[in-house]
Amino acid sequence: MTAGTVVSVRRVTCEAVPDLPHATWSNALVVGREVVLSGQTAHPATRDAAQSGRPLGAYEQTLVVLRKVQALLEAAGGGIHNIVKLVVYVTDIADKDEVGRARRDFFAPPPGSPGSAFPASTLVAVNALVFPELRVEIDAFARLDVDLRTAN
Amino acid sequence: MTAGTVVSVRRVTCEAVPDLPHATWSNALVVGREVVLSGQTAHPATRDAAQSGRPLGAYEQTLVVLRKVQALLEAAGGGIHNIVKLVVYVTDIADKDEVGRARRDFFAPPPGSPGSAFPASTLVAVNALVFPELRVEIDAFARLDVDLRTAN
Amino acid sequence: MTAGTVVSVRRVTCEAVPDLPHATWSNALVVGREVVLSGQTAHPATRDAAQSGRPLGAYEQTLVVLRKVQALLEAAGGGIHNIVKLVVYVTDIADKDEVGRARRDFFAPPPGSPGSAFPASTLVAVNALVFPELRVEIDAFARLDVDLRTAN
Repeated sequence: MTAGTVVSVRRVTCEAVPDLPHATWSNALVVGREVVLSGQTAHPATRDAAQSGRPLGAYEQTLVVLRKVQALLEAAGGGIHNIVKLVVYVTDIADKDEVGRARRDFFAPPPGSPGSAFPASTLVAVNALVFPELRVEIDAFARLDVDLRTAN
Repeated sequence: MTAGTVVSVRRVTCEAVPDLPHATWSNALVVGREVVLSGQTAHPATRDAAQSGRPLGAYEQTLVVLRKVQALLEAAGGGIHNIVKLVVYVTDIADKDEVGRARRDFFAPPPGSPGSAFPASTLVAVNALVFPELRVEIDAFARLDVDLRTAN
Repeated sequence: MTAGTVVSVRRVTCEAVPDLPHATWSNALVVGREVVLSGQTAHPATRDAAQSGRPLGAYEQTLVVLRKVQALLEAAGGGIHNIVKLVVYVTDIADKDEVGRARRDFFAPPPGSPGSAFPASTLVAVNALVFPELRVEIDAFARLDVDLRTAN
């Protein structure tokens, strides 16, 4: 096979989503113009809240997760307008409306905005996420060269 | 970061898969030459069938889902030959053979066709999908500039 | 829609991951410079081990799966340095540390290597995989034009 153009790859570092020293994954990579993200959860906020006796619900967790995705995208040079798709894993399917409400509050365009679109989204209930207090994990897919505020 | 080429994004509208007014997702986006789809289910056909006492099985649901994917791809200017991968979520792993049978009936090339290939496919059983009568949800990945009938 | 550039598609064949005659999926497709893979499991090694009374644990299964992904990527003209993301489905969330250990042993760069990065990774526990003895299935995402050993 002849060598083709090489696409650069860069690890995204971001204070809001620290890399753990023992991690065997990257939180986010910029691959060409694509941002390849690991699934994000609301940990450790969820752990701290659970320990203080006030566990975070699905709405709050979803917002924490989406803000982590936003922080990673901003560290990559982009923003939430670059997100083209979400895959949402919940532990209780009854949480789907709360997730939807958080998605609306997070992504809804300001009144009077020109053309825009929500990302595509898939939602399934799984058996468990990596910590017992987690209700939501989100796999986000984004491209720095796409702007959903310009969708028509 | 310097601005690069901007990739256009367009929301796909399709009578067979209507956009719900309260939806916080897009059914499908055309991003450059890629079609980014939300997970598709056989709703509302599954709800109507369940209410009439004849719930749809996994084979029928899979065909309904794949036809919705097809309708979205055709509305995007393509077809099922653009599908490169499926991620299939079932609620009962015992349905895997029925899903496979539907996949064969849907994707099998006509006899005597030249080179072609099935999409890649991943299948897992999840805890629940968004409505209780759903047995199958499919996340399809497609590119308008790819034609699996030309695979070799 | 005017025709754009056509991206070639090629089915990957590989002795280590044989195509089954009744399969309704492709194990791997090369689509342009992207390698689109089906979810991989440690079957049939897991079946054989279970039948002999020594079922494979999550660590062993993960390594078998990653070596199958490697074989497919090498048959596609690439290698494990092309992997940008993994989605790991386990049947028991308690296996997450064993999966992480296997991921480290498989992907860790040799001491003294220049810049490199682990792939992004998402891990969720599902209800079931296609055979009862399976504890791990991995969906790998790779590009032949990316080399994670050059990440910075």
